Amino acid sequence: LLDVDILRNNLSDMAEKARRNGLQFRPHFKTHQSRKIGEIVREYGVSSITVSSVSMATYFAGDWEEITIAIPFNTLEIDETNDLASKQKINLLVENWETLNFLNDKMKSSVGIYIEVDTGYKRSGVPFHRVDILEKMATFIQDSEKLHLKGLYCHAGHSYNARSEEEIQQISDESITRLSNLKREMTRSFPSLEVNFGDTPCCSVTENFGEVDSISPGNFMFYDLAQVNIGSCTTDQIAVCMVCPIIAKYPERGELIIYGGGIHFSKDRLQTNGMEYYGLPVHVGNEKRGTPLSDSFLISISQEHGIIKANAEIISELEVGDVIGILPVHSCLTANCMREYTTFYGDFYDHM
Amino acid sequence: LLDVDILRNNLSDMAEKARRNGLQFRPHFKTHQSRKIGEIVREYGVSSITVSSVSMATYFAGDWEEITIAIPFNTLEIDETNDLASKQKINLLVENWETLNFLNDKMKSSVGIYIEVDTGYKRSGVPFHRVDILEKMATFIQDSEKLHLKGLYCHAGHSYNARSEEEIQQISDESITRLSNLKREMTRSFPSLEVNFGDTPCCSVTENFGEVDSISPGNFMFYDLAQVNIGSCTTDQIAVCMVCPIIAKYPERGELIIYGGGIHFSKDRLQTNGMEYYGLPVHVGNEKRGTPLSDSFLISISQEHGIIKANAEIISELEVGDVIGILPVHSCLTANCMREYTTFYGDFYDHM
Repeated sequence: LLDVDILRNNLSDMAEKARRNGLQFRPHFKTHQSRKIGEIVREYGVSSITVSSVSMATYFAGDWEEITIAIPFNTLEIDETNDLASKQKINLLVENWETLNFLNDKMKSSVGIYIEVDTGYKRSGVPFHRVDILEKMATFIQDSEKLHLKGLYCHAGHSYNARSEEEIQQISDESITRLSNLKREMTRSFPSLEVNFGDTPCCSVTENFGEVDSISPGNFMFYDLAQVNIGSCTTDQIAVCMVCPIIAKYPERGELIIYGGGIHFSKDRLQTNGMEYYGLPVHVGNEKRGTPLSDSFLISISQEHGIIKANAEIISELEVGDVIGILPVHSCLTANCMREYTTFYGDFYDHM
Repeated sequence: LLDVDILRNNLSDMAEKARRNGLQFRPHFKTHQSRKIGEIVREYGVSSITVSSVSMATYFAGDWEEITIAIPFNTLEIDETNDLASKQKINLLVENWETLNFLNDKMKSSVGIYIEVDTGYKRSGVPFHRVDILEKMATFIQDSEKLHLKGLYCHAGHSYNARSEEEIQQISDESITRLSNLKREMTRSFPSLEVNFGDTPCCSVTENFGEVDSISPGNFMFYDLAQVNIGSCTTDQIAVCMVCPIIAKYPERGELIIYGGGIHFSKDRLQTNGMEYYGLPVHVGNEKRGTPLSDSFLISISQEHGIIKANAEIISELEVGDVIGILPVHSCLTANCMREYTTFYGDFYDHM
């Protein structure tokens, strides 16, 4: 269930933050994966987008000026990528010489290249202090016939390990300082280098973007309990919830059984005071969802069943056959499992 | 990537176990969710199957004598269920009076009913010691015009909390003793009552089925690392693995980055010696996959990326652009994410 009003508020806030900081806004579409939601995003001044796979870029192709595929390029997808590049302006992410040489050999049409920089996340990316490698790669791209140097791309995903707004701010400041220093150093030789920065926690919290030129957060459109947990947002900003039928009730155990499990939510979980949970129950009305019910947690999910632990008052109000909303721990994976949205206005939105 | 030879061995072992114990074999199809795999299952003497949703029953409808929808009936799906029951013999699971009364009012054609019994899992089901409720429900069903009493259904899912074959055996023995006592007590009034028992751990380990009449395990066809971890099977019996491209390599960190994340695997994980992991890497050849590589783990997954920790020797053998296999922690959720299988023989198998 998608609350379009919350989605629009989240979009409006982030677009306005980009505007007042002079940043190009290239939001990531991996969270919603929806053409219909893409149309809404366009209303907020967006013309270029970010995605996480060649198939996702293909799904969105034709509607956007540039599409950046923000994962280190998978050489096994060269044919699909050449097909796509023949009809849509795309940018690829590169962070190693094998792939860079491969693309230089195999790309048939022009393609933009971002070099991925790692400012401390330690997933993929050239470490930020290896200016030597970054400059050699940038030179190679600049000298290539098919490859076009876009700039540097950074996803500071270690912000997801933060546990407060202050910790996110520290990670953001550190990453942006590192990127700003890099940009100042590299623009001597590469004057048009763009620096793209992108995770939802940092983009939600910071107002200090240094030398960054563009941002590409994605999760912020929906947010979720993981973002609440680390200090990126409040539960009021969560735009999606799952509506689950109650299929059994055990007042003596303080539990409700819902039709909603791992194939609907995926399996991300959080802990609060030693209580592990996969979502928080909310009431769902005709026009709005409520706030999380007190002392209530989705404590367990199997393939299709879920167990809600709740206090006696909440359990007494709900019957088998009623529905309850669940705020998800990780909205991207939940949306990816469900592959469709219903809005409070009764519309159905697609998911690739 | 599906190893059909392993799948056939797993099917053959379980079908033979059912035969030698005089059990009807009604395997659960929620793990594979594939018509093509269903055709293979039929070769092992199977004519009636078990599924976990009305939509899955609809997908398999027409090909099977009886389909049991093994989740407490969701009253919001009455229309789809009536449609289905008009063309396919189905059995529903019931464990509360609200749903039983609802079905008695709303079903338009005849439907089989299993009463779900809880022998200690504490998810859904009438507690095994409430013979009074079970007999009242059975009487109600027997007296109903549309509802047809099939018997008792039990999923002893607490076997997934076991940590050894011995612990699984204990849980199995306890559940089967409870079901056998129940059956002896209830068959005085309900002579044709069938007792169905169904989880993969118990069915894999036990040879003592007491008064049980039929079994409905599902995961055993593929097995997975979670089953290895609790003692149900060995890694040789795991029939599926994910083939993941290597997209980055960090020898100095002892890490490989693969294209494979939460949207491919879902997010179930295991722990061994304090190491948390989402899968185990194996080599994948033309005809067979290998055994798990020593000291190598898929230690982290985000939406589309995964990080493999491996020893220096393994890392030195693999390059960006190569592929590696990953044995999944939970094959049901992984198959549900991928929605397609490729076999070593080059065939593609469907997934609903």
